Amino acid sequence: MAETHKKTVQPNKQALLNRLKRVEGQVRGLHRMIDEDKYCVDILHQISAVESALKNVSLVLMEDHAKHCMVKAIQNGNQEETIEELMDIIKRMK
Amino acid sequence: MAETHKKTVQPNKQALLNRLKRVEGQVRGLHRMIDEDKYCVDILHQISAVESALKNVSLVLMEDHAKHCMVKAIQNGNQEETIEELMDIIKRMK
Amino acid sequence: MAETHKKTVQPNKQALLNRLKRVEGQVRGLHRMIDEDKYCVDILHQISAVESALKNVSLVLMEDHAKHCMVKAIQNGNQEETIEELMDIIKRMK
Amino acid sequence: MAETHKKTVQPNKQALLNRLKRVEGQVRGLHRMIDEDKYCVDILHQISAVESALKNVSLVLMEDHAKHCMVKAIQNGNQEETIEELMDIIKRMK
Repeated sequence: MAETHKKTVQPNKQALLNRLKRVEGQVRGLHRMIDEDKYCVDILHQISAVESALKNVSLVLMEDHAKHCMVKAIQNGNQEETIEELMDIIKRMK
Repeated sequence: MAETHKKTVQPNKQALLNRLKRVEGQVRGLHRMIDEDKYCVDILHQISAVESALKNVSLVLMEDHAKHCMVKAIQNGNQEETIEELMDIIKRMK
Repeated sequence: MAETHKKTVQPNKQALLNRLKRVEGQVRGLHRMIDEDKYCVDILHQISAVESALKNVSLVLMEDHAKHCMVKAIQNGNQEETIEELMDIIKRMK
Repeated sequence: MAETHKKTVQPNKQALLNRLKRVEGQVRGLHRMIDEDKYCVDILHQISAVESALKNVSLVLMEDHAKHCMVKAIQNGNQEETIEELMDIIKRMK
């Protein structure tokens, strides 16, 4: 699905920005681990930690999207598009 | 599993470092998308892209680990520890 | 979440029943592979095939649920419960 | 990867057979739930339970494979094929 030009102010905007700053730092940490020849298994564990942090960001976004954008779209009769978007997200997540 | 103090020079070290630099840039891109109030669905799609980039880094690391560290450990009779490490990684991945 | 006592006639009921009959047959096939001492890697590949078949059943169910139950609940003002159910499903899927 | 003609007697054969019998019963249970028009969310939860049961079967198989087939292959100098098989399994699992 091509990027839309819709806009949404996230209700948890600052919290999400803080989380992503931490994820960015974790990715830099991965870079450092490889640069310093750390053991592969330790790096793989750290990648799992980054993956869970990212997963949590996507769950917060998903819940806010459902509570606001999806509800509004369905109440305005635009369920088809919002459900198509939902299924596209779920297929990528699974 | 606590971090070990083993060291490994990754055979694909520079390629991995480049990939992680790109992932870091992608995470900054996510930060910008939220900051600029982009649509949640577009951000969720971008998170999936970051997740796949990270997954590819872990697959490269996993393969190199299997080819070098696991083979060496098994050839030296240390299969127990290396298989325990393997199963721990697989459980986190699944 | 405890099982509810709500009822829903699936719009794709027969197709879902057929799919699940096939999955059941695939699981019996796994049983036979182990019974006949087939190679572990072949069995693991077959488990992945069963997992994808199950995933497709859950995606069909999810889409029908979104199109019917979620839309109806939101139109009737019961968004809170239906979004809680959605997030619970997504967390289990991810 | 095409099915091989290798054979392996699983060290946990009976336990795996019992687990798969239970999974088969769970899939029949899913069939019944749809047949009896149970609520989609309840069915989706049950699919997650079947998916975790299958995941546990694959983890038992994977560990036994690593401990026996992989170790033997590596000790006999056939690491290339066994690592190719490992990576193929991991890619399907992830």
